[in-house]
Amino acid sequence: MSFRLVQKDKNTKARLGILKTARGEVPTPYFMPVGTQATIKTLSNDEITASGAGLIMANAYHLYLRPGEEIIKKAGGLHKFMNWKGPIMTDSGGYQIFSLAVLRKVTPEGAEFKSHIDGSRHFMTPEKIIEFQKVLGSDIMMPLDECLHYPVVRSNVEESLKITLNWAKRSKKTPKKDTQLLFGIIQGSTYPELRKRAVEEIVDIGFDGYAIGGIAVGEPRGLIHEITDYTAGLLPELQARYLMGVGTPLDMLEAIAEGIDLFDCVVPTRNGRNGQAFTSNGELQLRNAPFKDDFKPIDEKCACYTCKNHTRAYIRHLFNTDEILGLRLVSLHNIYFYVKLIEASRGAIKANRFKEFKEELSKNYKRMPIGKQKEHSC
Amino acid sequence: MSFRLVQKDKNTKARLGILKTARGEVPTPYFMPVGTQATIKTLSNDEITASGAGLIMANAYHLYLRPGEEIIKKAGGLHKFMNWKGPIMTDSGGYQIFSLAVLRKVTPEGAEFKSHIDGSRHFMTPEKIIEFQKVLGSDIMMPLDECLHYPVVRSNVEESLKITLNWAKRSKKTPKKDTQLLFGIIQGSTYPELRKRAVEEIVDIGFDGYAIGGIAVGEPRGLIHEITDYTAGLLPELQARYLMGVGTPLDMLEAIAEGIDLFDCVVPTRNGRNGQAFTSNGELQLRNAPFKDDFKPIDEKCACYTCKNHTRAYIRHLFNTDEILGLRLVSLHNIYFYVKLIEASRGAIKANRFKEFKEELSKNYKRMPIGKQKEHSC
Repeated sequence: MSFRLVQKDKNTKARLGILKTARGEVPTPYFMPVGTQATIKTLSNDEITASGAGLIMANAYHLYLRPGEEIIKKAGGLHKFMNWKGPIMTDSGGYQIFSLAVLRKVTPEGAEFKSHIDGSRHFMTPEKIIEFQKVLGSDIMMPLDECLHYPVVRSNVEESLKITLNWAKRSKKTPKKDTQLLFGIIQGSTYPELRKRAVEEIVDIGFDGYAIGGIAVGEPRGLIHEITDYTAGLLPELQARYLMGVGTPLDMLEAIAEGIDLFDCVVPTRNGRNGQAFTSNGELQLRNAPFKDDFKPIDEKCACYTCKNHTRAYIRHLFNTDEILGLRLVSLHNIYFYVKLIEASRGAIKANRFKEFKEELSKNYKRMPIGKQKEHSC
Repeated sequence: MSFRLVQKDKNTKARLGILKTARGEVPTPYFMPVGTQATIKTLSNDEITASGAGLIMANAYHLYLRPGEEIIKKAGGLHKFMNWKGPIMTDSGGYQIFSLAVLRKVTPEGAEFKSHIDGSRHFMTPEKIIEFQKVLGSDIMMPLDECLHYPVVRSNVEESLKITLNWAKRSKKTPKKDTQLLFGIIQGSTYPELRKRAVEEIVDIGFDGYAIGGIAVGEPRGLIHEITDYTAGLLPELQARYLMGVGTPLDMLEAIAEGIDLFDCVVPTRNGRNGQAFTSNGELQLRNAPFKDDFKPIDEKCACYTCKNHTRAYIRHLFNTDEILGLRLVSLHNIYFYVKLIEASRGAIKANRFKEFKEELSKNYKRMPIGKQKEHSC
């Protein structure tokens, strides 16, 4: 078994667990920093390690296009290519094929697309992306799926789900290394019955863990949690549950209370590169003028390199003068904040006070106005 | 005395010395990483320290415009603002006023210019820039000067030199803190008699060290060294000699052999951001296709973070995918290479084998084609 359920919270559906990978055990709930193109944007491996993160995320679609299979093979796999010694989960890139790539055609056989980089034509199949993830040497693989945006009419979701379920079966049948885990992905948009059907069929195929996809793709916040809560409740208790591409600090805490174990999101790095910092008191836009002579750290409670060494005023100056160190310092802080927030969540679950922990944070946490933040990672 | 001459090389004019600043002693010859806007582009303070550098360079013109005097004052000076604990030299920004700024008018009183950022009007005087460097808390200050490009007719150089000499006098008279050093700048373009006149008058005013300016501003390489060698030979033996804005590895070694003690240059970071790496065997353009499956480090003899952790193929991938980590890794390596090259030069002078050291490096060192590199830093 790749997952061990360690403890269940008494007041919420939060859980403590251990995800076992070929490259070490990962305590859950857990946040995976996203290194789409074999680098967590602006940051070094050492900085990621210093934040406390062990398991990171990369993207098979992006790596398939660049550097491509041949170079990854010659390097001896993704871990060697990027020199990351911890476990790596790779997303198949289904989401990217359906959002970034151009002129696509989806058939039951696979997805035809033109590269978003050079327009070159490709035909991706579930088998091919598993084989590529075998070359990557991913510790956790994801199958090819179709991820729809919100809103979609029910008949289209049903049609799409059929394809995703078929692809899931074929993914399962494709040979991989014994040490590699393969997760199943639950789609079904905002239709509970379709989510239920997806869970039944995907669990029936049988995977090492289950991901909830197609969440935070445009739907209102209430609906995000309604569907997550409902779907998580249908999943096998003794396997890991991963909520793909979510989210903001408050959304992650909410999802933990709904029984989610794993998260990935580009928000800490993407928003960090725009000057937005996450703190225990909420979100700050460090480009703003009031920070020009604010000589406090981003977050006085934070022990990251940025907060131990630099002031908001200095970081605001770096953004103001287009200096790359600014992007680094805020990305670094945000990753650290996310990793420590989820670490603290584990502590709170262990102490059976996760509900209070979540409520305290929510009470003090000032969000940036909607529209100034991007919710979804993929 | 701010400088102690420790040893003279037997076969060249190279020298070992110690430059004494309020924030510690600096062994010479020495290379200063350039942090124009209070950050050495793409790098953190810790990375600079890890390269072995202690004294760094910043630019008063840039800092005068952003973040400006008021914020630096509130921060308690430049060291606190950027959290750099070692000594800092600040260039006055004369070069920038004459190259970056627009619609300038030079009068004996000072230089009128429009900011290159927002077009705002400013009038800079020698007194004002010294006062600002007092606010910055620079350990070594530079006076306002006029830096001409090559070629310039002699009468224009004479005219300009008059202004620079007048400004030097006024700079010297402007009060600074006792702990701050002030260097004099020798101009005079490529005219030996004017360089000689400049040395005589500047030395007559009396400064804590002497900088040779207006070098590597477009003249052929032979002339760079002819003028540097000639001018260095006129300067007081017992004071530090700083060659402004030079240069490439071979040019620095040549200048050390001509008796230069201090260097600054943006080449390692600027060219690094373009994918150009400096190695013990010469220069590499890591964007180039042959590196796509080259799994060696940039330089097998190098012990920097980049070379210990990453391959040329990975770095090429980072440049190919516009990932900021690529800019960081090459900048980091290049700064390390520069600092260690000058460190090794000191070792060679100490062992009285600097001539051999320089010849060995030159023999193996393959330069990139001219035009692919920028020579000058300012």
